[in-house]
Amino acid sequence: MPLTEDIAAPIAADLSEVLARFDAELASDLPFVTELVDRVRGYRGKLLRPKLLLLSASAAGGIRDEHLTLAAVVEMVHMATLVHDDVLDEADVRRRNVTINRMSGNEAAVMLGDFLISHAYHLCSSIGSTEAARRVAAVTNTVCEGELMQIHHRRNLELSEREYFDIIERKTASLTALCCELGARWATAEQSVVDALATFGRDIGIAFQIVDDLLDLTGSQDETGKSVGRDTEMGKLTLPLIRFRAAADDECRAQLDKILSNGHEDKAAHTRAMLAESGCVEQAFDVARDYVDRAVAALADLPETDAKAALTTAAEFVVQRRT
Amino acid sequence: MPLTEDIAAPIAADLSEVLARFDAELASDLPFVTELVDRVRGYRGKLLRPKLLLLSASAAGGIRDEHLTLAAVVEMVHMATLVHDDVLDEADVRRRNVTINRMSGNEAAVMLGDFLISHAYHLCSSIGSTEAARRVAAVTNTVCEGELMQIHHRRNLELSEREYFDIIERKTASLTALCCELGARWATAEQSVVDALATFGRDIGIAFQIVDDLLDLTGSQDETGKSVGRDTEMGKLTLPLIRFRAAADDECRAQLDKILSNGHEDKAAHTRAMLAESGCVEQAFDVARDYVDRAVAALADLPETDAKAALTTAAEFVVQRRT
Repeated sequence: MPLTEDIAAPIAADLSEVLARFDAELASDLPFVTELVDRVRGYRGKLLRPKLLLLSASAAGGIRDEHLTLAAVVEMVHMATLVHDDVLDEADVRRRNVTINRMSGNEAAVMLGDFLISHAYHLCSSIGSTEAARRVAAVTNTVCEGELMQIHHRRNLELSEREYFDIIERKTASLTALCCELGARWATAEQSVVDALATFGRDIGIAFQIVDDLLDLTGSQDETGKSVGRDTEMGKLTLPLIRFRAAADDECRAQLDKILSNGHEDKAAHTRAMLAESGCVEQAFDVARDYVDRAVAALADLPETDAKAALTTAAEFVVQRRT
Repeated sequence: MPLTEDIAAPIAADLSEVLARFDAELASDLPFVTELVDRVRGYRGKLLRPKLLLLSASAAGGIRDEHLTLAAVVEMVHMATLVHDDVLDEADVRRRNVTINRMSGNEAAVMLGDFLISHAYHLCSSIGSTEAARRVAAVTNTVCEGELMQIHHRRNLELSEREYFDIIERKTASLTALCCELGARWATAEQSVVDALATFGRDIGIAFQIVDDLLDLTGSQDETGKSVGRDTEMGKLTLPLIRFRAAADDECRAQLDKILSNGHEDKAAHTRAMLAESGCVEQAFDVARDYVDRAVAALADLPETDAKAALTTAAEFVVQRRT
């Protein structure tokens, strides 16, 4: 059985209710809106974020009705970021489907992302307290800051490892941390349990993004089901390149910088070739693995439940995935 | 005294508190984010939406602390739509400033719009009930639908007057209606007063958008302080053109359609020249004036207060403005 099914086993019924709420929220009387939303539904993949939320709830005390709504909310936020990310990255393919920007233009993609985020907040404010809405919005503030930071540092070949981690912690790890936090908090867990799960979510988020960046550099569109080589194309430095530049002599660094600069053809292939013998890809992978180990360690004091076991499997999946 | 100052007179102190909350919400420790936010602040113009909210509150019973936050929220939502609109319209100038998309690229503009909308929801969920957040998000859902509808109908030369009104009611009037509704509701007004003010807000929103479209067609960048001629350039049919096409003989219609089709140079000037003798611009203006009259009529049963007088002035301003 693939890892992703292992993860979902303890929460299968809840997950289908989450998807039903997701679909109900996005129902529209406008046929062209429905068509766009159907296409977004084709992006649905691993459902990692709703799974993290539900498993955290289960591990922290039990799944309640609010969790099902909140899980749909975090998936909708995630979908919105994917749609806008593809505009930013000028990507053509996502989950083996043509992207919205490619099929319907950047304008429709910008507005569809807005539509998704608006519906996410609308759904979120259907549960009885403003606390969830406040937390979700605080985290989307942070996600946007991470994205703005990334845009700001485009073509900055001097990007430091610290800056790289600051970006991925904001744009990716803040949302996975939120999933686990909301799961625990709405299960009325003690603060120490909420904190442990938030740490878990944050650390696997960091690992997830490091691996995501590695797949963009070393994977193929065929294997990953999405456009690859976008980071080097858009001048985004990621962990293996930062490590390589830091260790390289002047000549090597100048050669890499020339590849990464504007106008160079097939940057990803040339970058891959340069990095091949350096060990920097493996180093970056080891860093991701360390974060996964730390994430799992954060759960040490939680009781041994099926949900906790599934969270551990989810953490493992983050570094084993190839898509 | 210009009309805009008349409008603000009864609420001047409240309005400066609204701006303080707006600024406090957007404070960031990231200098490049602060720089972008400062640039957005340069878009601030008439503050029509916060004024509508505060005046409605005042006319319906009195301004409370929640109103000051809600007024900052609607202005932030409006700013987000401006930033994304300029991406969609490929506009270069807004309030005599270079647009974000022009200065920092579409990517930064997309993400800054997301940042603004995220902060709007964050601020909105700081007031004690989910009702406001739910209403604001319901309306932003509608605004996005209106924008998606507009994109869907681009280059649709057969756009009907009914479809045009459907678009502007969703993308513009729904937000001005919300301002007045929130003002009245948080003043704990009776439902009939809330309804009257929501109708007022909706009708001046429709008038506002008709005039906005007219300024895009007949105004100059120098006069309006923003890029003009974008509608014809982007293949967006507006009221005078719809009226003209409906009344024109086959030859005239074919001539207009040729101007509006791709590849024709300086579409706005040619369209203006074609419409000059038709009376369609004046007709569209009269329609806007009718909506303003209806808006003012909706307030008939409200007690005569300074705030009500200012709302009437605001309605008048909508059809008198030149920027």
